[in-house]
Amino acid sequence: MQITVQHIAALVQGEIIGNPETIILGPGKIEDGKPGMITFLANDKYESFIYDSKAAAVLVSRSFRPSRDVKPVLIKVDNVYASLAALLSHFDVALSSDAGISHTAVIDRQAEIGQNVSIGHHSIVRKNARIGDNTIVHGQVFIGDDVRIGKNVKIYPGVKIYHGCIIGDNCTIHANSVVGSDGFGFAHDNDGKYSKIPQIGNVVIENDVEIGANTVIDRATMGSTIIRSGVKLDNLIQVAHNVEIGKDTVIAALAGISGSVKIGERCMIGGQVGFAGHIHIADGTMIAAQTGILSSITEKDSKIAGTPAIDYGNYLKSYAYFRKLPDLAHQIRMLEKELDKLKQQINTGS
Amino acid sequence: MQITVQHIAALVQGEIIGNPETIILGPGKIEDGKPGMITFLANDKYESFIYDSKAAAVLVSRSFRPSRDVKPVLIKVDNVYASLAALLSHFDVALSSDAGISHTAVIDRQAEIGQNVSIGHHSIVRKNARIGDNTIVHGQVFIGDDVRIGKNVKIYPGVKIYHGCIIGDNCTIHANSVVGSDGFGFAHDNDGKYSKIPQIGNVVIENDVEIGANTVIDRATMGSTIIRSGVKLDNLIQVAHNVEIGKDTVIAALAGISGSVKIGERCMIGGQVGFAGHIHIADGTMIAAQTGILSSITEKDSKIAGTPAIDYGNYLKSYAYFRKLPDLAHQIRMLEKELDKLKQQINTGS
Amino acid sequence: MQITVQHIAALVQGEIIGNPETIILGPGKIEDGKPGMITFLANDKYESFIYDSKAAAVLVSRSFRPSRDVKPVLIKVDNVYASLAALLSHFDVALSSDAGISHTAVIDRQAEIGQNVSIGHHSIVRKNARIGDNTIVHGQVFIGDDVRIGKNVKIYPGVKIYHGCIIGDNCTIHANSVVGSDGFGFAHDNDGKYSKIPQIGNVVIENDVEIGANTVIDRATMGSTIIRSGVKLDNLIQVAHNVEIGKDTVIAALAGISGSVKIGERCMIGGQVGFAGHIHIADGTMIAAQTGILSSITEKDSKIAGTPAIDYGNYLKSYAYFRKLPDLAHQIRMLEKELDKLKQQINTGS
Repeated sequence: MQITVQHIAALVQGEIIGNPETIILGPGKIEDGKPGMITFLANDKYESFIYDSKAAAVLVSRSFRPSRDVKPVLIKVDNVYASLAALLSHFDVALSSDAGISHTAVIDRQAEIGQNVSIGHHSIVRKNARIGDNTIVHGQVFIGDDVRIGKNVKIYPGVKIYHGCIIGDNCTIHANSVVGSDGFGFAHDNDGKYSKIPQIGNVVIENDVEIGANTVIDRATMGSTIIRSGVKLDNLIQVAHNVEIGKDTVIAALAGISGSVKIGERCMIGGQVGFAGHIHIADGTMIAAQTGILSSITEKDSKIAGTPAIDYGNYLKSYAYFRKLPDLAHQIRMLEKELDKLKQQINTGS
Repeated sequence: MQITVQHIAALVQGEIIGNPETIILGPGKIEDGKPGMITFLANDKYESFIYDSKAAAVLVSRSFRPSRDVKPVLIKVDNVYASLAALLSHFDVALSSDAGISHTAVIDRQAEIGQNVSIGHHSIVRKNARIGDNTIVHGQVFIGDDVRIGKNVKIYPGVKIYHGCIIGDNCTIHANSVVGSDGFGFAHDNDGKYSKIPQIGNVVIENDVEIGANTVIDRATMGSTIIRSGVKLDNLIQVAHNVEIGKDTVIAALAGISGSVKIGERCMIGGQVGFAGHIHIADGTMIAAQTGILSSITEKDSKIAGTPAIDYGNYLKSYAYFRKLPDLAHQIRMLEKELDKLKQQINTGS
Repeated sequence: MQITVQHIAALVQGEIIGNPETIILGPGKIEDGKPGMITFLANDKYESFIYDSKAAAVLVSRSFRPSRDVKPVLIKVDNVYASLAALLSHFDVALSSDAGISHTAVIDRQAEIGQNVSIGHHSIVRKNARIGDNTIVHGQVFIGDDVRIGKNVKIYPGVKIYHGCIIGDNCTIHANSVVGSDGFGFAHDNDGKYSKIPQIGNVVIENDVEIGANTVIDRATMGSTIIRSGVKLDNLIQVAHNVEIGKDTVIAALAGISGSVKIGERCMIGGQVGFAGHIHIADGTMIAAQTGILSSITEKDSKIAGTPAIDYGNYLKSYAYFRKLPDLAHQIRMLEKELDKLKQQINTGS
C-alpha cells in the first residue's frame, strides 16, 4: 500500500512540516524507523530516536519542538495516539473469517442469527441464542442457551459464553476467554465441608467493551455481573460474581476482582491488582500495579498503591524509608548508646 | 415458578416470622429486593437494606434481631449460606446439554462410556479413556488417552484433560481449564541452555472437587499431582507439578502454587497468593490475598500475610508503622539534634 | 519396561557404586521410593530420605558423600537434573495423536502442510498457513491465516494462533494458550472514552521455546513481539505487545510483562512478577516471585525483590526491620521520654 504524507495528514487533521508529497509505505516503531516508514513520537523517552531516524515521516504532538535537526517530515496532531489509531486502521489486516455459517458449526434450530453474520468452524450455538447483524463468531466458540449478542461484535476462537449472558453492540472478546462461568460461592457446613451455592444469575456486557484473551467473567449468584459501556479488560483477568465495572474503566492483565465489588467510571487499574470483596471504588481512581485494596475508596480520582492500599505518593515516600530501615535502626541504636553515655556523664557528675 | 414461604421454610428448616402463605416468585439480592422476591442477609454490611426492602421474605440467621421494623417475612435459619444454597437449587437453570453422544464428537472405539453420559459437539475422547455414569461432558472438550472420569461429573466447554489423569465422582471443571499439562521442569546445562525433563506422572483429582475456568493443574514429573476430596479452586489458578492440596481447602483466583508444595486440609487461601516450591502448609492455615509464602507453615490454623509471609496481625501492625515511616524518620532526626544540643550544653557547662 | 543399572549408567555417563546388574522397573520420587524404582537426589532438603529408601537406585551428584549407610545403588553423575531428563525420556509416554490429518479438521486448500505432520480432530488451519515437517497439531487448535510453524513443533489441544504469527522449530505450546491476540492499546479521547489502536504487528517465536498452558502472548502494535530461542514460559503468563524476551530466559507462572519491555538473556523470573512498560532488564537478572519492577535494571546478573524492586539482599534486610517496626517505634518513644527527662534534669540542675 502506498500513500502520501498529504493523504495521511488529511486523515488525522495534521499540520505538515516538510514535503507533503513524500511517499509512505507503511507504519513502524520509531526505534526501528526505516525508509518509507511513518512512525510516531508519543513518549518523551523515545525522543532521541527521532534525530537519527531514517523514517519518511513522524506523527508528533502540536507542542513538539525538536532540539536538533530532524530529517523525517513531521505531522503535528492534537492527539498522537488517536491519530496513530486512525493511521493504523488504514494498514490493518484483521483475523479473516469466511463469510456465512460454517457447515461444521452446530447451530440450534431455535437460535436466531442476524443478517451478515459469520459463524466459524466447529462453533456451537445453542437453543434460543440470538446473534445480531454483522457479528463475527470465529471458530471453536461456544454460545450457550438464551445468550444474546449484539451487532458488530467479534468473538475470537475458543471463547465460551455460558447460558443466559448478554453482550452488547461493538464488543470484542479475544481467544479462549470465558463469560458466565459459575461464581465461586460455597456454603461452609458445620463439619468443615463446602456445599455449592447455585449461581443462577448471568453476565451483562454493555456496548463497546473489549475483553482480552483467557480472561474470565463469572456469572452472578443472583442478578447480574455487569460490565458497563466502553470498559477495556486486558488478558487473564478475573472478574468474580456480582461485580460491576463502571463506564470507560480500563484494567490491565492479571488483575483479580472479588465478588460484589463495584468499580466506578473512568478508573485506570494496573496489572496484578487485587480487590477484596464487597467494596466500592470511586470514579476516576488510579491504582498502581500489584496494589491490594481491602476497603472502599470513596474519594474520586485518588491515586493509590500498596497492600493494603494507601495514597500513591505516601506509599512511595514510606517505601523510600523502608529501603533505609537498616540505617534507621542503626541510628536508633546509636542514639540509645549516646543517651546512656550522657546519662552516666551527668549522674557521675564528670 | 411460584412457591409459598411455608414451602421454603420447610425446605431450609427455618422458623417463620410473618405470614407463611406469602407467595415467592424468585430469589434476589437484598440491595435490589423487589416485590415477590426472597432474599438473604448473611453479611452485617448489608443489614440496613432489610429495613427498606420491598422483598417478600428474607433468610436471616437465628440470632438476628432487627433494630427497627421489618416488612418482609423473616425465615430464621441455622446457616444462611447453606439455606441459600438449598433455596437456589430450586430456581437453578444449569447450562443445558443434549442427552447422549453428539455425532460430531470423536470417540475412540476403545473408550468406555458409562450409562446416561452426555458428550457434546466437537469433543474428543481418546483411547482407553473411561467416563462414569451420569457424567456430562460439554462441547469442545478434550479427554486424552487412559483418562478416567468418575460419576456425576460436569466438564464444561473447552476443558482439556491430558492422558492418564484421573478425576473422581461429583467433580465440576469449568470452561477452558487444563488438567495434566507438563510440569515446568528443565535441567540447566552448563552452557546456560535448558533441556526438558519429561513429565511422566499424572494428575489425580478426588471426589467433590470444583475447579474454576481457565485454571491449570500440571501433571507430576513422576507420581501424581493430587487434589484431595472437597477442594474448591477458583479461576485462573496455577497448580504446578507434584503439588498436593489437602481435603476441603479453598483457593481464590490467580493464586500460584509452585512445584512439590504440600497444602494441608481446610486451608483458606486468598487471591493472588504465591507459594515457593517444596514447602508444607499446616492444616487450617488462612492466607491473606497477595501473600508470598517462602517457607513452611508448621503451626495449624495460623493466619498469615505479607511477602515473605508473617503473622497476619503482626503484618498489619508493621504496615501501620510503615505508613508512618516518614514521621518516624523525622522523630529520629529530631532526637539526634536534641541530643547534640544537650551534649554541647553539658560539655560547655552552660 | 525393565532395564539394568548398568544400562542407565551408560545412558547418563554415571559411575556405579553397587551392583550394576540391579533391575530397574521405573522412575519415582525419593520420598516414595519403592522396590525396583530408580530415584534421584538433587535437593539437599531430601537427603534424609535416601537412608531409608527401598528404591533400587538413586542418581546423585559426583560430590555426594553419604553420612550413613545407603542401601540403593548410587549412580554418580555430573548434573543430576540433566541425567534425570535423559532417564525419564526412556519412560515417557506422550499425549498420543493419530498419524496424519483428521478428516474433521478444516484445512484451507492454500495451507502448506509438511511431511509427516499430524493435525488433530476439529482443528482449523487457515489460508496460506505453513506447517513444517514432523510437527504435531493436536485437536481443537486454531491456526490463522499466514501463520508459519517450523519443524518438530508440538501444539497441544485448544491452542489459538492468530494470523501472521511465526513459530520456529522444536517449540512446544501447551493447551489453551493464545499467541497473537491484540495488544492492549487504546487512545484516550478528550471525552474520557477510548478508541482502539489497531494492532497490525505479529508474534515471532524462535526455536526451542516451550510455552505453558493458558498463557497469552499479544501481537505487536507494529513490528513483532519476540520470544528468542530457548525461552521457557510457564502457565498463565501475560506477554504484552512489542515485548522482547531474550534467549534462554525462564519465567514462572502468572508473571505479567507490560508493553514494549525488553528482557535480556538467561534471566530467571519468579512467579507473579510484574513489569512496568517500556523498561529494559539486563542479561542474567534473577527476580524473586511477586516482585514489581518499575524501572530498567542495567547491571547484569542482579538479584532483585520488592515493589518497587530493589536489591534482593537489601529487601530481605529491610523486611526484617519491617517486622520489627512496632519495636523500633517503641524505642523511639522511649528515647524521646528519656531525653526529656534528661533535659529537665539538666535545666533544673538537679
